[in-house]
Amino acid sequence: MTDDISRPLARAPRGFVDHRARDLAAEREILSRVSAVYERYGFEAFDTGALEYADALGKFLPDADRPNEGVFALQDDDEQWMALRYDLTAPLARFVAQSWETLPKPFRRYAFGTVWRNEKPGPGRFREFTQCDADTVGSARPEADAEIIAMAAEGLGAAGLAQGDYVLKINNRKLLNGLLVRAGVTTEGQKLAVLRAVDKLDRLGPDGVRYLLGEGRKDESGAFTKGAGLSTSAADAVLAFTAAGRADRTETLDLLANVIGGSAEGDEGLAELSRIDQALTGLGVGADQAIFDPSVVRGLEYYTGAVFEAELLLRSLDEKGQPIRFGSVGGGGRYDDLVARFTGEPVPATGFSFGVSRLASALRAAGQDLGRQTRGPVVVIVFSPDDMPAYFALVAELRAAGIAAEVYLGSSGMKAQMKYADRRLSPAAIILGGDEILAGTVTIKDLDLGRALSTGVTDNAAWRAERPGQQTLPRAELIPALRRILEA
Amino acid sequence: MTDDISRPLARAPRGFVDHRARDLAAEREILSRVSAVYERYGFEAFDTGALEYADALGKFLPDADRPNEGVFALQDDDEQWMALRYDLTAPLARFVAQSWETLPKPFRRYAFGTVWRNEKPGPGRFREFTQCDADTVGSARPEADAEIIAMAAEGLGAAGLAQGDYVLKINNRKLLNGLLVRAGVTTEGQKLAVLRAVDKLDRLGPDGVRYLLGEGRKDESGAFTKGAGLSTSAADAVLAFTAAGRADRTETLDLLANVIGGSAEGDEGLAELSRIDQALTGLGVGADQAIFDPSVVRGLEYYTGAVFEAELLLRSLDEKGQPIRFGSVGGGGRYDDLVARFTGEPVPATGFSFGVSRLASALRAAGQDLGRQTRGPVVVIVFSPDDMPAYFALVAELRAAGIAAEVYLGSSGMKAQMKYADRRLSPAAIILGGDEILAGTVTIKDLDLGRALSTGVTDNAAWRAERPGQQTLPRAELIPALRRILEA
Repeated sequence: MTDDISRPLARAPRGFVDHRARDLAAEREILSRVSAVYERYGFEAFDTGALEYADALGKFLPDADRPNEGVFALQDDDEQWMALRYDLTAPLARFVAQSWETLPKPFRRYAFGTVWRNEKPGPGRFREFTQCDADTVGSARPEADAEIIAMAAEGLGAAGLAQGDYVLKINNRKLLNGLLVRAGVTTEGQKLAVLRAVDKLDRLGPDGVRYLLGEGRKDESGAFTKGAGLSTSAADAVLAFTAAGRADRTETLDLLANVIGGSAEGDEGLAELSRIDQALTGLGVGADQAIFDPSVVRGLEYYTGAVFEAELLLRSLDEKGQPIRFGSVGGGGRYDDLVARFTGEPVPATGFSFGVSRLASALRAAGQDLGRQTRGPVVVIVFSPDDMPAYFALVAELRAAGIAAEVYLGSSGMKAQMKYADRRLSPAAIILGGDEILAGTVTIKDLDLGRALSTGVTDNAAWRAERPGQQTLPRAELIPALRRILEA
Repeated sequence: MTDDISRPLARAPRGFVDHRARDLAAEREILSRVSAVYERYGFEAFDTGALEYADALGKFLPDADRPNEGVFALQDDDEQWMALRYDLTAPLARFVAQSWETLPKPFRRYAFGTVWRNEKPGPGRFREFTQCDADTVGSARPEADAEIIAMAAEGLGAAGLAQGDYVLKINNRKLLNGLLVRAGVTTEGQKLAVLRAVDKLDRLGPDGVRYLLGEGRKDESGAFTKGAGLSTSAADAVLAFTAAGRADRTETLDLLANVIGGSAEGDEGLAELSRIDQALTGLGVGADQAIFDPSVVRGLEYYTGAVFEAELLLRSLDEKGQPIRFGSVGGGGRYDDLVARFTGEPVPATGFSFGVSRLASALRAAGQDLGRQTRGPVVVIVFSPDDMPAYFALVAELRAAGIAAEVYLGSSGMKAQMKYADRRLSPAAIILGGDEILAGTVTIKDLDLGRALSTGVTDNAAWRAERPGQQTLPRAELIPALRRILEA
């Protein structure tokens, strides 16, 4: 390679990250634990490809203000537009529309898959991430929603969240729709503006949202956001509705009946929530795990009935001692129109989705670091390249005993080799010099002990003189000795 | 949704496939078994994102005739070109160039990841598939190649291939290079033409390849392929070289010394193979698992030293009774220049890669169907929607006992429910009618038994009258009875 060739800069595209062993171990552990729960609920694994035709993805993008934007799109040889999937639901709808006749019905599937969003990246905001979805397609029963909610709760628990660290909050789009119809709101645009205003309750509080429901709101910077244009009494009704959530599911239902009662759609929504409540109770899911909360909106336009959100309740502190609120780790709801986009025939469906690395971070904050078991191999130090076959026979013996091990294969001296073993978080280094090979012995350096001592000892020289944790043993005693170190 | 809206067609892009539970279970099992082996060898999990800047991927595409083609490319907001990765090696080289200072050296990683090739799809030829790669970056030692080869062999065995079903074939680019230099070949173009000719040995045999090494070859259709332009004696030497492989590694090395002996590069290649042989022997990898085969070329331009290929030896028959030869399931080699593309500094590296679904198909053909354990849940039949809470309490009990179970959530009658349970390959259906709820009993229909009987019984009516495998039990005996069915 000559110097006059211009070299590419080594960097990943913005918003894309490389994943190291610790994170991958945590994600794999979540996959394994959550899959076991989902399969126990009768859901089968199913996944689609990364690319879909753009028309099949549709304009159901998360951000309703930018339809047809937000995806990574490219043209195929035949000039058809394709795009990387931005969620796992749109490809499922495509598959179901294509294969409906051949599927068991209802079709219950779950998936772990990468999704891509062509959005502006930021801290903790990536353009590529892994989602875990579960969906029941072909059941209009509210019990199907209840199953998904119960399963989501059990899955989060299996992943490592303690009871009380999370809660599933449930609402139904039909309630707010019924309320709005009674208040004389008829256009989809106005309904959407109300949904968007309610979605800001967390950030702006009821007073801020009241402006957004009415004429509009000017923020601190002086920027004006147009409101939904509701009358004062209609805005009051919406705010009373969103505040009707109680710790007890039955109490919330009673309260809601008073607030929204009277419209056919609202009554339908209430009846659905009541059946969800009964199924949850049958499944043993109490109010400590799942409550009704009318302030839950969920941004996606495509929801048609029940919506739910998994909220993390655990509080932790950041580096500056400030409390971090994790908020939502996932959500979902009923989307009865998504398959109809293709076929014209409505197919009832409901699902739940969570972000895998978001859950992994939350677990870490909760003291459940699923990646912590990632450690390095036992490292066999290289003294003389001539003894390589002896080193390899040794690592083969350790591996056959189930112990991760490797011969150091760089070209550096003793010091660099020990540093390497330390950086890999190796439990031990093994020294097999010429003398030891002749004598049938082996020397083990206990690196865990070394690391532990070095943090508590100030007189490094004295510590080094004692050579703590270094022992020379007959070869036959090597594996038991290593096991003692690994199990310590 | 009104009818005047034009509906998108529900189809996946060409060359992209949807993955059902059975295939996903097989791939997940391979991931789990192979990861365990690779981690025992001291390799850590590491993965990059799907998209890379196109200049970082370079023009090392598998098909050397089409540099800069064969990838799915798109422009970012800032007009930089990005592309979906076509393998896992180019992104690794980018990461290493970017992070070299902070990495443990050598850096030993493995990855399971999706790759994309924008090529013409065909039967068994997809545009998206999963690869498993392992690489050691930062070691020039031939022993690093030997470790990768031994690990590849052990990984294939752990995945389910029996000894004798596969063999690792090893060669070294330096041997043929040395031979060609001695024969007066100096240009890279001519060397590449020789490599391409040798790569066709399998298909054309030595006589066909002799034409391609010389003036050129006219095929049956009359189409002419230009040759490498070697003299007759040089072509003979190349063919003698490729035929020097023997069952014994030492014998092959001796033979090769005679055929290519004399050039510095050839001698270097031989010395490397000899050290690989010794390390493999130290690791306990005999000639039944790894041999030297000078006819192995590997298509990728970027290999600089040892190359290796995992060949499946198992023979199976297709539907027409014709023998299927699986051929190569994976391969790899030494690529010392890939990181230097970015940094100008050569970083020695070696790796092995296999196609996960290709291995899964091979395992299936060898009678090792890793996906076979995929079965459906126990299905609780719905008689009366009023009893839903009782049904849900029952499935909750089964799930808590570790038995996959679900309440049927469609809206159809008894017959459709039994058909559903059958299609899901459910082991049993449970009938919990009003009478049974009152009596504290439950009825189990053993669907496995039903399926077994139905295939052996001609008089279907008589079989149905006997209602085989249906029993009514006290509720407390349900779980033990289901376990007996599941374990049968």
